[in-house]
Amino acid sequence: MSRPPAIVLVRPQLGENIGMAARAMANCGLDELRIVAPRDGWPNPAARAAAAGGNAVIDSARVFDTAAEAAADLQLVLATTARPRDVEKPVHGPREAARLLRESGARAGILFGPERSGLDNDEVGLAAAVVEAPLNPDFPSLNLAQAVLLMAWEWRMAGPPSETPVPSELAAAEAFEGFWRHLDGALDAAGYYREPKLKPTVQRNLRAIFARAGLTDQEVRTLRGVIARLSAGGRAKDY
Amino acid sequence: MSRPPAIVLVRPQLGENIGMAARAMANCGLDELRIVAPRDGWPNPAARAAAAGGNAVIDSARVFDTAAEAAADLQLVLATTARPRDVEKPVHGPREAARLLRESGARAGILFGPERSGLDNDEVGLAAAVVEAPLNPDFPSLNLAQAVLLMAWEWRMAGPPSETPVPSELAAAEAFEGFWRHLDGALDAAGYYREPKLKPTVQRNLRAIFARAGLTDQEVRTLRGVIARLSAGGRAKDY
Repeated sequence: MSRPPAIVLVRPQLGENIGMAARAMANCGLDELRIVAPRDGWPNPAARAAAAGGNAVIDSARVFDTAAEAAADLQLVLATTARPRDVEKPVHGPREAARLLRESGARAGILFGPERSGLDNDEVGLAAAVVEAPLNPDFPSLNLAQAVLLMAWEWRMAGPPSETPVPSELAAAEAFEGFWRHLDGALDAAGYYREPKLKPTVQRNLRAIFARAGLTDQEVRTLRGVIARLSAGGRAKDY
Repeated sequence: MSRPPAIVLVRPQLGENIGMAARAMANCGLDELRIVAPRDGWPNPAARAAAAGGNAVIDSARVFDTAAEAAADLQLVLATTARPRDVEKPVHGPREAARLLRESGARAGILFGPERSGLDNDEVGLAAAVVEAPLNPDFPSLNLAQAVLLMAWEWRMAGPPSETPVPSELAAAEAFEGFWRHLDGALDAAGYYREPKLKPTVQRNLRAIFARAGLTDQEVRTLRGVIARLSAGGRAKDY
């Protein structure tokens, strides 16, 4: 049986929403809550009150400074968004995403952005794929806790996978970050980013290609070898 | 297309929950809210505030004295419960119930009980069938607005599928081959393939990473720029 995904609330504003999200998680059998830079600090009495029977989820929640830190050990990160982004990533509905989570066997997490603004582009950049629910196009914006319920419910309904999943060899987010910094730094040194204004867009697009591929640890090492070798012009020792 | 079911909140206690339920309805394209004997009277400013973009649902809500009156014109009534009742009625999960609603073509409504106690037996008695979600048996009690979202979402998903997002322009095989030959040649020139015996395996693994990513034409150009720049160590003109 695959372990339930971690729910990662990024910069949540209202304690009530954190509590209601925890309650929805408990309803659906999810227990791992990660909170990134909660606006009103932590612990938050309003969150605990709103969690009702889900307060064990609140009590065991872990707090992080950044989404990247919260996702560091995760092998499969999904980002929820209310509207399509310009990044080139696969977009799944919640039902499809839940199936993907069940089948991958990876240590997974789902990112949810702040109530007002949603995830920023760098945070979406941490994810291998985007989850977007096919809601009323005139009013697609779900309350934060409702969005968590929707994913938790779909995960629950996607049921245990038919076979026991093979333990995933996907690289954890931290290893992926190391690879990305290596590539980015090599490109900087080589003068690849000629237009400062375009740099963030070029970085985002380039990163999305590799995020989407779902790299294993071995593949991360291979690509780092490629970067080292190409940028050294034959002088590097890495293979 | 079948008309969406009416959502009937029976003796709801908190205005916030009424508002959040209306918001969830609007998210899923439901617009008919009926409220039976709301504890705090009607209209309720807290309900309207919590509804956010769903306030049209609040403004058009109708209030009734009893569940029987609220259900009087409905042809198919379902009652949601958190725990099995001793009444002899069919019990459906939300997904099955949504299919039933879609297929019946009947003027339908779904009853939701008060936060604290749920529907009483007479109210359940109005329904043709009971809806019970297969939640965590240790904590199955959904928040009222979450329960409404769950049914509204399942109703939406049971419907005609919305259009799938148009996939971006994937690069043709020929363009991918050009990219691959470029990378492979640059690696050869840089002395990356040190072990002739391993070369085919390394090539296969490396190629698989990019094949898997499903590159667009633009991404192929971006990656070729990366290769050119890295292997030229800053001398190349491509971007």
